[in-house]
Amino acid sequence: MSKITSLVTGGAGFIGSHVVKHCLAMGHEVVVLDDLSGGFEDHIPAGAIFIQGSVSDDQLVTSLFEEYRFQYVYHLAAYAAEGLSHFIRRFNYNNNLIGSINLINESIKHKVKCFVFTSSIAVYGAGQLPMREEMVPMPEDPYGVSKFAVELDLKAAHEMFGLNYVVFRPHNVYGENQNIGDKYRNVIGIFMNQIMQGQQLTIFGDGEQTRAFSFIDDVAIPIANSVNIPAAYNEVFNIGADKPYTVNELAKVVGACFGVTPNIKYLAARNEVMHAYSDHTKAHSVFGEGSGVSLQEGIARMAEWAKEVGARKSKEFENIEIYEKLPQGWERKQPQAEGVPA
Amino acid sequence: MSKITSLVTGGAGFIGSHVVKHCLAMGHEVVVLDDLSGGFEDHIPAGAIFIQGSVSDDQLVTSLFEEYRFQYVYHLAAYAAEGLSHFIRRFNYNNNLIGSINLINESIKHKVKCFVFTSSIAVYGAGQLPMREEMVPMPEDPYGVSKFAVELDLKAAHEMFGLNYVVFRPHNVYGENQNIGDKYRNVIGIFMNQIMQGQQLTIFGDGEQTRAFSFIDDVAIPIANSVNIPAAYNEVFNIGADKPYTVNELAKVVGACFGVTPNIKYLAARNEVMHAYSDHTKAHSVFGEGSGVSLQEGIARMAEWAKEVGARKSKEFENIEIYEKLPQGWERKQPQAEGVPA
Ligand SMILES: NC(=O)c1ccc[n+]([C@@H]2O[C@H](COP(=O)([O-])OP(=O)(O)OC[C@H]3O[C@@H](n4cnc5c(N)ncnc54)[C@H](O)[C@@H]3O)[C@@H](O)[C@H]2O)c1
Ligand SMILES: NC(=O)c1ccc[n+]([C@@H]2O[C@H](COP(=O)([O-])OP(=O)(O)OC[C@H]3O[C@@H](n4cnc5c(N)ncnc54)[C@H](O)[C@@H]3O)[C@@H](O)[C@H]2O)c1
Repeated sequence: MSKITSLVTGGAGFIGSHVVKHCLAMGHEVVVLDDLSGGFEDHIPAGAIFIQGSVSDDQLVTSLFEEYRFQYVYHLAAYAAEGLSHFIRRFNYNNNLIGSINLINESIKHKVKCFVFTSSIAVYGAGQLPMREEMVPMPEDPYGVSKFAVELDLKAAHEMFGLNYVVFRPHNVYGENQNIGDKYRNVIGIFMNQIMQGQQLTIFGDGEQTRAFSFIDDVAIPIANSVNIPAAYNEVFNIGADKPYTVNELAKVVGACFGVTPNIKYLAARNEVMHAYSDHTKAHSVFGEGSGVSLQEGIARMAEWAKEVGARKSKEFENIEIYEKLPQGWERKQPQAEGVPA
Repeated sequence: MSKITSLVTGGAGFIGSHVVKHCLAMGHEVVVLDDLSGGFEDHIPAGAIFIQGSVSDDQLVTSLFEEYRFQYVYHLAAYAAEGLSHFIRRFNYNNNLIGSINLINESIKHKVKCFVFTSSIAVYGAGQLPMREEMVPMPEDPYGVSKFAVELDLKAAHEMFGLNYVVFRPHNVYGENQNIGDKYRNVIGIFMNQIMQGQQLTIFGDGEQTRAFSFIDDVAIPIANSVNIPAAYNEVFNIGADKPYTVNELAKVVGACFGVTPNIKYLAARNEVMHAYSDHTKAHSVFGEGSGVSLQEGIARMAEWAKEVGARKSKEFENIEIYEKLPQGWERKQPQAEGVPA
């Protein structure tokens, strides 16, 4: 039997690099497509073929499908800065929606056996808690809208062309290989980066907002494995940890791993949901129980890794489209083009 | 008081050209942005400023907003061939979603007073009938997904930036200025074109599918007027006729207007909903009752116009992305690129 060939988009990223590792362990030949906008080439596990480029480059995507004839596509490439998506609408839809559509088109044409997509709990909007898969999505920001549109498009592609898919809606994942240098997302990485640079920890609002922080193994292993589980096909799964913590509690746990008492700077609240946690009964019934790694243990593991790699300088996102109402700490000077009134 | 300036995208198209007419009658200065992909320059009412170009050209869109400082934006530009959208996914999202996002971005920046958007009943999917605004949308094809994504994005833009919008979900509109040369949509125009060319009338399936065909005045007048009605702001409206007819009944009515008994060729059914009609109670309560023009009278008026302009040659859509399962009559030979296996 010839080898199974899988495409992992965003394979230089956080979750993607772990999915690549698990796919290699399952014996797949793995091709990584990543533009390194948020990922790191040295996070790509040895043994994978790396192609640097964007999922929104349709000609590149077409040529990769022609060349490699993938059986499985794991589509993780995205710019996931949910809060920033209001201010970078066009970029968001180009990167996260059009990029996905290029992959769906080719997956239909090349009869890919299963298309695995990482959506997000952002599709739910501020609904009832805990979020369950049978609830009606009502995303409230461009990031969530683009994820939901891809979910709906996959369903249409399944009905019309028989393309199988598995949709995962993870939330607040953390662990090794996370980009701790992105000031727009990943509160745990931001805290670690701030501590290692001797800075105050910044929190939007009063820090009493809650999230259920999910250890990477509890997310990446089911994602990688899903293509082997027919019961998962054409289904949507919440995935991640059950227990919510406040951001203030989180700051303490992270501080403890670095032996410091966190010194917190509270910023103006930004437009975000106060509480977000989801029900994982469906995922557990199909993928089994998770790793059982606690927040304290998971953060400690990630902290060991972070100390090794050291602090990262946060990159500014260069192409802000709307400057009005940018949250505190994210403001940038609007470039003044000639002839544009101030 | 200085003049109100409005942008009408798709103003060379069917509904758009009527909206332009009504806006001019309300005293607006009107700028039409249309790429003429489906519209006709000679349908643009005299007095409007015409810019030929695409809403997906973000630099052009930006420069128009800089130049004209629109108070109102009526966004009707779209390629609305719903059934074809499965086969032209990327084109669909680029044209219908990214184009809309360019306009939303600029409308936020320039503090447009109201953004009027023509969505579609395609957002409902095959739900219960009649479709009502409070039902949960669940679009089933890329065209419907792109319309719903724009609706959600507008809602997010309103919550975040205060941009006011009015969303209309029309269905099966007909009347003067309709493109009767598009074989992918507008069954009434297709029938007229076929009769005038002495061809058989083509129907997908058994012709017992029903639609409520809507006379243009019942759609274009409320659209144009909505910016003046604060109660319409940030609301979604079904708009159009109440009474459903089968496509077979429709063929008879159209035939009668041309003095012929229709000779029908039934094609294989395509993937479409059997019945679609919506409730308009909400629109009537805000915009008043409609024109009262019956299907027979409306079709007769349109037929008079169609006889004047004559038959049109149907253009083939040039950039089909997926050839598999293209419905009968829409098939095209897939171009064979060098090096691409057959
Ligand atoms: N981390 C989370 O908590 C979380 C939660 C919900 C959903 N997700 C989703 O999971 C996926 C992976 O997220 P992550 O946390 O690993 O983020 P990440 O930023 O670490 O990884 C994303 C990777 O995609 C790459 N990328 C971005 N745009 C690309 C493009 N146009 N073409 C090619 N590569 C591109 C980046 O370079 C990066 O390597 C994303 O789709 C994200 O939306 C993540
Ligand atoms: N006619 C209907 O029954 C119906 C039903 C539901 C929704 N709608 C919506 O109403 C709107 C108008 O539809 P219509 O029936 O008048 O269609 P139409 O094709 O007659 O008009 C659309 C116009 O938009 C222009 N256009 C298309 N893409 C463009 C682009 N990228 N940039 C600039 N111009 C572009 C076309 O040239 C055309 O003039 C569309 O948004 C459509 O989705 C129509």
